[in-house]
Amino acid sequence: MKPIFFTPGPSQLYPTVENYIHDALEKSIPSWPHRSEDFKGIFRDAADGVRKVMDAPKETHVFFLGSGTEAMERTVQNMAEKRSFHFVNGSFSKRLFKTASQLGKQPEKIEASPGQPFDFSKANISNETELLCFTHNETSVGIKTPMEGISKIKKEHPHALVAVDVVSSAPCVDVDWDAVDCAFFSVQKCFGLPAGLGVIMVNESAMQKAKVLQEKGVSIGSFHSFLSMAEEEAKSQTPETPNVLTMYLLGKVCEDFQKIGIDAIKKETKEKAALLYDYFDAHPVHKPFVDEAEVRSDTVIVAKTPQGSKPLISKLKEKGLVIGAGYSDYKDSQIRIANFPAHGMKDMKHLLDEMSKL
Amino acid sequence: MKPIFFTPGPSQLYPTVENYIHDALEKSIPSWPHRSEDFKGIFRDAADGVRKVMDAPKETHVFFLGSGTEAMERTVQNMAEKRSFHFVNGSFSKRLFKTASQLGKQPEKIEASPGQPFDFSKANISNETELLCFTHNETSVGIKTPMEGISKIKKEHPHALVAVDVVSSAPCVDVDWDAVDCAFFSVQKCFGLPAGLGVIMVNESAMQKAKVLQEKGVSIGSFHSFLSMAEEEAKSQTPETPNVLTMYLLGKVCEDFQKIGIDAIKKETKEKAALLYDYFDAHPVHKPFVDEAEVRSDTVIVAKTPQGSKPLISKLKEKGLVIGAGYSDYKDSQIRIANFPAHGMKDMKHLLDEMSKL
Repeated sequence: MKPIFFTPGPSQLYPTVENYIHDALEKSIPSWPHRSEDFKGIFRDAADGVRKVMDAPKETHVFFLGSGTEAMERTVQNMAEKRSFHFVNGSFSKRLFKTASQLGKQPEKIEASPGQPFDFSKANISNETELLCFTHNETSVGIKTPMEGISKIKKEHPHALVAVDVVSSAPCVDVDWDAVDCAFFSVQKCFGLPAGLGVIMVNESAMQKAKVLQEKGVSIGSFHSFLSMAEEEAKSQTPETPNVLTMYLLGKVCEDFQKIGIDAIKKETKEKAALLYDYFDAHPVHKPFVDEAEVRSDTVIVAKTPQGSKPLISKLKEKGLVIGAGYSDYKDSQIRIANFPAHGMKDMKHLLDEMSKL
Repeated sequence: MKPIFFTPGPSQLYPTVENYIHDALEKSIPSWPHRSEDFKGIFRDAADGVRKVMDAPKETHVFFLGSGTEAMERTVQNMAEKRSFHFVNGSFSKRLFKTASQLGKQPEKIEASPGQPFDFSKANISNETELLCFTHNETSVGIKTPMEGISKIKKEHPHALVAVDVVSSAPCVDVDWDAVDCAFFSVQKCFGLPAGLGVIMVNESAMQKAKVLQEKGVSIGSFHSFLSMAEEEAKSQTPETPNVLTMYLLGKVCEDFQKIGIDAIKKETKEKAALLYDYFDAHPVHKPFVDEAEVRSDTVIVAKTPQGSKPLISKLKEKGLVIGAGYSDYKDSQIRIANFPAHGMKDMKHLLDEMSKL
């Protein structure tokens, strides 16, 4: 029996993916030239599919990158000359902040205590802020920043652009496209695909900003600047030879998601999350790391393991159930369980059942 | 019957790759966490394999990127503050030059006429030049810049670093590691893998330069700066979640190459190239684009099609043989035929046979 991976990404492949890989090999897709008409079809299917499952306006640009981490770099490069403001509540929001520093920007931030929501009223956002950066789902500690909060901040700062990291929540997230100018994700989380592809979705305001920066002589990168990617996107192509196989798989999985219905997928995700949180709430030791129910992540469930995460992880592994350790400093004191569309209700109940027996 | 792809990349998969993909799925490799011990094994196999087939010193850093195009950006970012000097003889060497401009450097160049070798004596390389950029195999027009020439220029300019694009020649190239500080490639060419992975190999001089630039406050990028990648490399990891599946495949194909022997692979590559050039030399119309035999590419053979490339491409496609059109402006007036390790002698003779019949 193959193990089931509940790791927060890379994670379990979506159940249809293996067959799609076989189909792709049968059709020789990995050999298709990336300037061919056939490839353009793959590009369109992936980009249209992403727009649909993300419920994005049809004019939203969809660009393909190497990873969600690359998306952080491209976001900051193209959307801020100097001032970005970051809502930091874990390792990935911190990474985006650090990226801005590394690229010579002058980022500012508000930091929440680990596992605690932001007190938005304390965010000291100056009028010079060009870009507001949020991490919708902090994969490191399993906390979310509800979209309503993001929309509210945007209303208070209409002149700033908004970028949202939805790496481990897309497409199980209701993005407010009136408030969000840029959203990015990687495919090895909720899309249940092999890693090696990042996706960044941007609107015209983000494109305009990139243009202004370029005209000012600010470097917005080279082949993966928004402008360079948009030029190729207009031809249903990419500047470089991209990860064609995974783009194909992304288009197919987006089709599957649409057949089931994104609302149904979101609903089941919340139901599975509720089962997990109920289990941990009732557990004498392994309590959820995040106290407030409204900000608990739906897709990455984090529980405390004060007696160490290793014994639990090992015992479950013996039963063919692979869960994740805490992130970085929390490696031993937390476990992380992914709750992605690839994890069916049956799998989740099986995991809970086996955890109960330990 | 599946077609055989002689396109210059993406191209035919190396014959063992499909089975390795099946093995990888059987082992759940796409689900393996990128911070696990199992992943570290994949990292080491790929990095060690690359060093071996490239005959690189064991202390050479091997970093993994999204594409060869990304490697251009990272090379310029990390190896030049201002002055790079470029040997431009086609679209890809031009792209590297353009990348330097886009990143705010002040690149200089010598340009060769299309299909002609460089007159090295005319290269006006100033003493301020920090980085010399060569394209060993210009995929766009099928011309190579012999390694001896690169070594000679390095000897004349010992204080400049040398970066070589070996995108479509590695590992069928004898890199002079005494002269070369950085070499990069992508895996969908001679390695016969699905696209979506670039590899950049750098020595300590390149690392030192990146350090100096960072200390000076010059931006060397963020997650994919040489320093950031080296920090993770020391743990057999990558800064981002990388293309794990293709890294696994790369390690396996490097093993295959070593079993056959890299010298044997290089020898057969030259033999197949000779057959193709002999054919085109003898052809009344479809002459090789590059006249001088010493600089004709071994791995991407380009021939002129003054009556248009389309009829030839279409007729061969009907026979299940997919060759490439000319690059960009040469789309109609040239054809390109990849001669990679995935293309066996039998395949090549079959292609020649079918071309003869047209």
